[in-house]
Amino acid sequence: MSTGRPRVVIVGAGFGGLACARRLRRVNVDATLVDRTNYHLFQPLLYQVASGLLDPSNIAKPTRSILRRVKNVEVLLAEVTSVDLAAHTVSTSAKVLEYDYLVLAAGSVTDYFGNESLRPRTARLKSLDESIGLRSRLLRCFEQAAVCTDAVRRHRLLTFTVVGGGPTGVEYAGAVAELIKHVLPKDYREIDFREVRVALLEAGERLLPTFAPRLGASAQRNLEKKGVDVRLHAAVKDIIGDEIVLDSGERFGAGTVVWTAGVRAAPLADSLGVPIVRQGRVEVTPSLCLPDHPEAFVVGDMAAIIGGDGVLPMLAPVAIQGGRHVARAIDARLHGRADPVFHYHDKGTMATVGRGAAVAQIGPIHINGLVGWLLWLFVHLLYLVGFRSRALALWSWAWNYFFYDRPVRLITTPPGDT
Amino acid sequence: MSTGRPRVVIVGAGFGGLACARRLRRVNVDATLVDRTNYHLFQPLLYQVASGLLDPSNIAKPTRSILRRVKNVEVLLAEVTSVDLAAHTVSTSAKVLEYDYLVLAAGSVTDYFGNESLRPRTARLKSLDESIGLRSRLLRCFEQAAVCTDAVRRHRLLTFTVVGGGPTGVEYAGAVAELIKHVLPKDYREIDFREVRVALLEAGERLLPTFAPRLGASAQRNLEKKGVDVRLHAAVKDIIGDEIVLDSGERFGAGTVVWTAGVRAAPLADSLGVPIVRQGRVEVTPSLCLPDHPEAFVVGDMAAIIGGDGVLPMLAPVAIQGGRHVARAIDARLHGRADPVFHYHDKGTMATVGRGAAVAQIGPIHINGLVGWLLWLFVHLLYLVGFRSRALALWSWAWNYFFYDRPVRLITTPPGDT
Repeated sequence: MSTGRPRVVIVGAGFGGLACARRLRRVNVDATLVDRTNYHLFQPLLYQVASGLLDPSNIAKPTRSILRRVKNVEVLLAEVTSVDLAAHTVSTSAKVLEYDYLVLAAGSVTDYFGNESLRPRTARLKSLDESIGLRSRLLRCFEQAAVCTDAVRRHRLLTFTVVGGGPTGVEYAGAVAELIKHVLPKDYREIDFREVRVALLEAGERLLPTFAPRLGASAQRNLEKKGVDVRLHAAVKDIIGDEIVLDSGERFGAGTVVWTAGVRAAPLADSLGVPIVRQGRVEVTPSLCLPDHPEAFVVGDMAAIIGGDGVLPMLAPVAIQGGRHVARAIDARLHGRADPVFHYHDKGTMATVGRGAAVAQIGPIHINGLVGWLLWLFVHLLYLVGFRSRALALWSWAWNYFFYDRPVRLITTPPGDT
Repeated sequence: MSTGRPRVVIVGAGFGGLACARRLRRVNVDATLVDRTNYHLFQPLLYQVASGLLDPSNIAKPTRSILRRVKNVEVLLAEVTSVDLAAHTVSTSAKVLEYDYLVLAAGSVTDYFGNESLRPRTARLKSLDESIGLRSRLLRCFEQAAVCTDAVRRHRLLTFTVVGGGPTGVEYAGAVAELIKHVLPKDYREIDFREVRVALLEAGERLLPTFAPRLGASAQRNLEKKGVDVRLHAAVKDIIGDEIVLDSGERFGAGTVVWTAGVRAAPLADSLGVPIVRQGRVEVTPSLCLPDHPEAFVVGDMAAIIGGDGVLPMLAPVAIQGGRHVARAIDARLHGRADPVFHYHDKGTMATVGRGAAVAQIGPIHINGLVGWLLWLFVHLLYLVGFRSRALALWSWAWNYFFYDRPVRLITTPPGDT
């Protein structure tokens, strides 16, 4: 494409990048959307892939197919290796892209708060491959435990520790607890399920710290009813041998450890040479561009956007609204209008705690239980891209609701890969 | 389980092993079903996973869940390392199993007819992991071609050669041709689809050699209409650099090569120390046991069963009927009755050639086109295990039929793995 129109490069096909690309359809530019995967991933449902409820294709859709009708945006499958803000270029594994406007929406990665030795010892839930790998890993533990006559090793195989009491940790722990309570006992008659242990460790004083205390408490009761051992004030210091060591000095068996405790902006943020704030996020103006590079915008988890109560959280709606805002801002500049100011409309946050139970917080309204779950279901169906994904996710949720089943219990990754 | 009842060990959870295990429910034995995967795989539909139409969970179901109600069969996830026919033991990666009756149903593997140098150079379609890998590999070729400015390299990326004109080769070539004709041009606007080439090489004088000549010719016309370059009398001798070399000396660009030309019995057959016939298959008695070891049965692709016109083909119905027969034979022995003789009921064979077209041969009746496809659809729905798989497969086939779509176009395997 060499139309003489301004060139936009968008880095990342997550919620922010995709929202921007879609909105650019009506803007007189040529854009390239770069991502290292060929799909847009509905990250909030990764835990349902990891727990065997959804197929990968229910929550991942090819980016090219989503943007089929957006003729002025081309899609590039490549890894971004560096951004040169002075030269207005983005280097990728495939080619170098020049831009007039840059939109950085590379998202976030798992953070170990400096203790990188935890990485090889833990599983993560940030990508599709990680979720499929975690599904295989969990099921393989049960297969091995079924034939294990060594009580110590069997105990290790049947212990699952989720670190981090935010939405991802709470949702995954709830899903695993239900898998263990309702589904696996029918499959593994050899296993005494009283030996299975699911623990959820949260460093702070309550679960779901970004929600109202009442909802965090409700989530905790719900998880405990499912048999999850919830530990508050339990900051993980290290994992030594097969033991988790807490800051308090307490130690206990780790088993399979899933780390959801920390996220930080994608490392690309650090490489820009611009001011970085908490969680590695990039400081932006009220119009979401870099103070010294107005042609470069940052949205989503990568951006530290000042909202009502401080920096806005790393949530899909923040990214989506940011992406749309940037498309509007570029359009405004092309027409010589002043930059619009970004305002985040908080439509609320929610987290499922398992079959038929969720917590939701919409401004002053706090909802839990079945009503929260139905609301959660409605909102997630709304945000899933495409009719097919919606229909199949609804089918899977109904299937789980009525049959207590997790049909995608496939071990597809070789042992070494998980 | 130590009930004093005779112990049966079944090796393989494919069509033969599973059919046997299910039928053993009514037989007074304790059985163990060993497989290296945790699922029963509907192999005939692997090509639909490889071409992005079906999700893995549509054709793979956890073996434990299929056998939930068969209380006298336990499932073991392990690799069989050796069988000692004299000692009546099966060694596995998990533990050693003793048996009174053995059922070998380990299936078949891809065969390169002695030219193992072809293995690293070609993709295969025999396992779920291979099919998911092939899906990623094909899509990655298009992603790379979209940004490739070197005409020679682009030509290589856009060439797909399927070796072998049996059902798997014909079905995969048809599915890829449709993907390229109907789906990918909408996604890859950067690619000139006249540069894409799909070739199907068959060593013999016609496609589908086990079908009536008229059906092979019909499949060929159908594939050619879709743009597949069908070459008969084209036996692959070697792949040198980027060229396929035929026995005739002819050479042409190989690109991505998918090898479906040969299958042989699983290597376990060779290790038994018993007479082996063509394709590495084990010689069996009319009751499907080993001549010198009547307590060891062999079914499915591993067994060379003499039928009406010679050795029975490697087909799911042969394996299913064989598995059921063995369960009956074991029951007969327990009751002191003579071994029943195995009779194969040929219900016909079929192969799809793409959307709305299939060939079917039921005794003297030869069917092709839409009627063949509807019959194919009906039979495959019948044989898929479980309501969920049937419903989702039917949904996907209808989706493809009406929207010409292959929704599972996900690149999920890292480049090195394919």
